[in-house]
Amino acid sequence: MDVFIEPIGRLINQFSKLPGVGKKTAQRYAYKVIGMTEAEAKEFAESIVCCKQKVRYCKVCGNFTEEDVCEICKRRQGNTICVVKEPKDVIAMEKLHEFKGVYHVLHGVISPMDGVGPNDIRIKELLARIDGTVQEVIMATNPDVEGEATAMYIAKLLKPLGVNVTRLAHGIPVGGELEYTDEITLSRALSERKSI
Amino acid sequence: MDVFIEPIGRLINQFSKLPGVGKKTAQRYAYKVIGMTEAEAKEFAESIVCCKQKVRYCKVCGNFTEEDVCEICKRRQGNTICVVKEPKDVIAMEKLHEFKGVYHVLHGVISPMDGVGPNDIRIKELLARIDGTVQEVIMATNPDVEGEATAMYIAKLLKPLGVNVTRLAHGIPVGGELEYTDEITLSRALSERKSI
Repeated sequence: MDVFIEPIGRLINQFSKLPGVGKKTAQRYAYKVIGMTEAEAKEFAESIVCCKQKVRYCKVCGNFTEEDVCEICKRRQGNTICVVKEPKDVIAMEKLHEFKGVYHVLHGVISPMDGVGPNDIRIKELLARIDGTVQEVIMATNPDVEGEATAMYIAKLLKPLGVNVTRLAHGIPVGGELEYTDEITLSRALSERKSI
Repeated sequence: MDVFIEPIGRLINQFSKLPGVGKKTAQRYAYKVIGMTEAEAKEFAESIVCCKQKVRYCKVCGNFTEEDVCEICKRRQGNTICVVKEPKDVIAMEKLHEFKGVYHVLHGVISPMDGVGPNDIRIKELLARIDGTVQEVIMATNPDVEGEATAMYIAKLLKPLGVNVTRLAHGIPVGGELEYTDEITLSRALSERKSI
């Protein structure tokens, strides 16, 4: 790195910390910053600090918010709770503009391999939210081993409380091709076939 | 973008301005920033402003520098000048640790299509550097149409001044395969063949 003068080398190092960014990409980003006006660079820097300082987690659901409680929790009825792994999953669901319930962000999934147990994610907080008004809990964790296990674990805790627990459907992606669908997905699509 | 709260949306917008970064990648970068400690985020922001403020262009060669004249111009003899398009090309050359001369950064190439003429790039400044001590000028502009044209144009101006003007060699990249070498490159490699 001695071919770079110190401020450039330092910025390249910082950009390299972003996910999926190597030295070469970080270099391109640094050149872009050098090519900005001073006002643009300041605005960029300011938005980083501002984002870090302002964004907190909702006390109720764990989603991103600027206040104590997020807009979704404030505005919507809590009859249906959609349980997701991370705040970005809330954004994926919200982009549908279809789901009108509230969320519960676990901030992780149970993963003994990584030393993450049931007490390390926000399961207690979910159970505390279950009162007479909650009719359905949709488990929307990722369809991988940890996501499935976490969904099953939580479902087991919720059922005695008299809540209807559901899981997002598995099957062939819309627009996908049978030939290229992996065997496990195809087998799930077959066993969960529906009458038309 | 209304699914994001304002500070996140703003940061995503800023990251989207980086070269090759779309909305999805910018989102990932923003989540990374949210996951940083406040000190890390501040350090990141500070390095952007610092890089923009401290990095200037060398008065002699046009390379990146923190002072008036860059380290290369200060320390090395100016018998051989390597002419490149941009400061990042200096870094590419310096990584070789082979070239011991100085540089001249044009900050562009002649490109009538983009409205860039000979007076818009640092050709005058190059001519002003040619005195009795300069023995060779290496044209290291990119091997594309504009780069070749610029090299030819500058060579024509320099030759009457009694300077030896050279150009980086064209040919098959080391480790490349004949089969996959494009025709123009292969034709140049043939016409510029050397006895062994």
